[in-house]
Amino acid sequence: MALIVQKYGGTSVGSPERIENVARRVARWHARGHQLVVVVSAMSGETNRLIALAKEIQEQPDPRELDVMVSTGEQVTIGLLAMALKKVGLKARSYTGAQVKIITDSAFTKARILKIDEERLRADLDDGCVVVVAGFQGVDEHGNITTLGRGGSDTTGVALAAALKAEECQIYTDVDGVYTTDPRIVPEARRLKTITFEEMLEMASLGSRVLQIRSVEFAGKYKVRLRVLSSFEDEGDGTLITFEEDENMEQAIISGIAFNRDEAKITILGVPDRPGIAYQILGPIGDANVDVDMIVQNVGYDGLTDFSFTVHRNDYQKTLKTLEPVVKHIQARGIISGDKIAKVSVVGVGMRSHAGIASTAFRTLAEEGINIEMISTSEIKISVVIDEKYTELAVRVLHKAFNLDQAS
Amino acid sequence: MALIVQKYGGTSVGSPERIENVARRVARWHARGHQLVVVVSAMSGETNRLIALAKEIQEQPDPRELDVMVSTGEQVTIGLLAMALKKVGLKARSYTGAQVKIITDSAFTKARILKIDEERLRADLDDGCVVVVAGFQGVDEHGNITTLGRGGSDTTGVALAAALKAEECQIYTDVDGVYTTDPRIVPEARRLKTITFEEMLEMASLGSRVLQIRSVEFAGKYKVRLRVLSSFEDEGDGTLITFEEDENMEQAIISGIAFNRDEAKITILGVPDRPGIAYQILGPIGDANVDVDMIVQNVGYDGLTDFSFTVHRNDYQKTLKTLEPVVKHIQARGIISGDKIAKVSVVGVGMRSHAGIASTAFRTLAEEGINIEMISTSEIKISVVIDEKYTELAVRVLHKAFNLDQAS
Repeated sequence: MALIVQKYGGTSVGSPERIENVARRVARWHARGHQLVVVVSAMSGETNRLIALAKEIQEQPDPRELDVMVSTGEQVTIGLLAMALKKVGLKARSYTGAQVKIITDSAFTKARILKIDEERLRADLDDGCVVVVAGFQGVDEHGNITTLGRGGSDTTGVALAAALKAEECQIYTDVDGVYTTDPRIVPEARRLKTITFEEMLEMASLGSRVLQIRSVEFAGKYKVRLRVLSSFEDEGDGTLITFEEDENMEQAIISGIAFNRDEAKITILGVPDRPGIAYQILGPIGDANVDVDMIVQNVGYDGLTDFSFTVHRNDYQKTLKTLEPVVKHIQARGIISGDKIAKVSVVGVGMRSHAGIASTAFRTLAEEGINIEMISTSEIKISVVIDEKYTELAVRVLHKAFNLDQAS
Repeated sequence: MALIVQKYGGTSVGSPERIENVARRVARWHARGHQLVVVVSAMSGETNRLIALAKEIQEQPDPRELDVMVSTGEQVTIGLLAMALKKVGLKARSYTGAQVKIITDSAFTKARILKIDEERLRADLDDGCVVVVAGFQGVDEHGNITTLGRGGSDTTGVALAAALKAEECQIYTDVDGVYTTDPRIVPEARRLKTITFEEMLEMASLGSRVLQIRSVEFAGKYKVRLRVLSSFEDEGDGTLITFEEDENMEQAIISGIAFNRDEAKITILGVPDRPGIAYQILGPIGDANVDVDMIVQNVGYDGLTDFSFTVHRNDYQKTLKTLEPVVKHIQARGIISGDKIAKVSVVGVGMRSHAGIASTAFRTLAEEGINIEMISTSEIKISVVIDEKYTELAVRVLHKAFNLDQAS
């Protein structure tokens, strides 16, 4: 008998019928002798409906009051799922984040979990109850309702699994696992049986949006076994996210090809090559609340260098405006920039111990005539910025070059 | 400066525009220097939508889980109203029933308020905040979410007014006060400036559904000044519900004519006139969860009497079935019954000290050829059961007979 935390997203609980499907799946796990905590999101569309309603009153809704409203989405789902579980003959009991209590800081709309009081849940589980918990929400130390931000239900699931020392946290979604790349672009993409946390972090942040990145970090920090599964299929083991150091299995060299078309690149030309210059450029951008992703600076000559970085496309114009006085102040030569770019990344822990991955990637792109505009590498990934129009082509040829279409 | 509790029903907060109207009204009261606690219902239609959703899963939804779901209706409104109040420049803060805390018993879907912790609200009010509270809901001592049953938002308003010792509890609704009778039947019906609690109780229970009856009882118990006003008109003082003993004002003899077409009458003929017989008849009906309204028994002769009473029409068939064995057992002669009846009542505290009210009422009906089937009186009302088809005629002629169309 094991304690398992399952999390079902908005699509999986999008209608009463689907909620009854979830109840039947939970009942099957329960019948095998497991204790179950089920975390649910709002029914699909509900969160957006509530936000739209708020925006009819305030264009920028008050964050505290927005959380009061938006948290009702999950509260409706927990009631419905508890009813559906009772209907299939199980004992069940629902809890809002505040009822659990899932204590967070007071950063409304993007709160962070500080601690979880698991006593009540434990008592219910020992009593044979399936416990249903509202994802995405908590309560601060003053009793104010908070939400964790979009996708926060994954984080709730992982945090509960950590607090209850669950055997596994299962994330049910509309895909049946993590793929070597987007199957809509490469039909030969394969589901990975396992992926390491580090790879998953790179895949998630690079645009394979299967799991919310914060939940993966959380799972890594508390060593929670995380599994991604489809809520629309009855069979299949999904993808298990492992701790590289824990699992003694043969890793593929490369796990997948990720890509992202949400960024814009900015290059400042002829930057004086002296200490503190990077901070002079990026400081004002951070102050303007813009997150910078890739940063590339090459060695300079003649005391000058070019400094490049990428930001989210939504922040592109704001960033350019912020930089105008900076460029004058540091007496740089000028700015070139563009938002028709894509970032394509080759991800895999195996590249730590295998040479030649970078050169294979660069050669593969060169053979297709794809120009590489920026390169950035970490221990387990190589990212390149290319012209947006070559995205699909680049993903396809890299997927093939690293034999990702072959079963490992 | 006074502390005022205002309650707005579902129609008054039925859309973002209407919520903004409520905010502007609250702002006007605030500008006059008052402290304000605003209790709101769910947006109109929302509670029914949530109940229908629950019934898609369980025909008889689990009461605890239904309360978890249904309480979200008010929670959305408090967030929206707090936003709207901030938009018009006020400090505002919303609270769910659980946050306040409004402690109730654990009778899910029909809980009763046990106590209210007013400390947090008081601190906010002293800080210049408008406090927005979700009506209809509370929390039991175990932290479970409860609801007070339909119309319970009125009760929340009155209970908060009592706990905070508010100057007045204002119930905003879609009518601008309590009328001498239904204006749809008698166009000359007048709005009453004041009505006593006792009269209001009779009017409410007799079918003038302006206020939920439990809230009126609550107001009477805790001596809360209650005022009914329209949320769709900017002017008008509505109707003040007074304590007869407190208010030194000239009372009209008769306040209004109430009526009710929801009942059925049952007469058991030839009942042996001996002690305990009423209990032998009404005991099984109570056991069947049927509420009995009017009960009439006349003195008997030859050791026999006729025993009549009324029940809600929904319980009519069930009551007849329950009585079958009873009639045999007590050896009564038989049953006559009918559900095409109306109860019409003349209500007024003035009748305590004025003779001749009953005879005026009976003569008025007789002059129109309306036969009286049952009569029941209390200190402040005279109720008659008549053929349903004469309802409007009876209400009109009684309204005129007691000069209710004349300003008092």
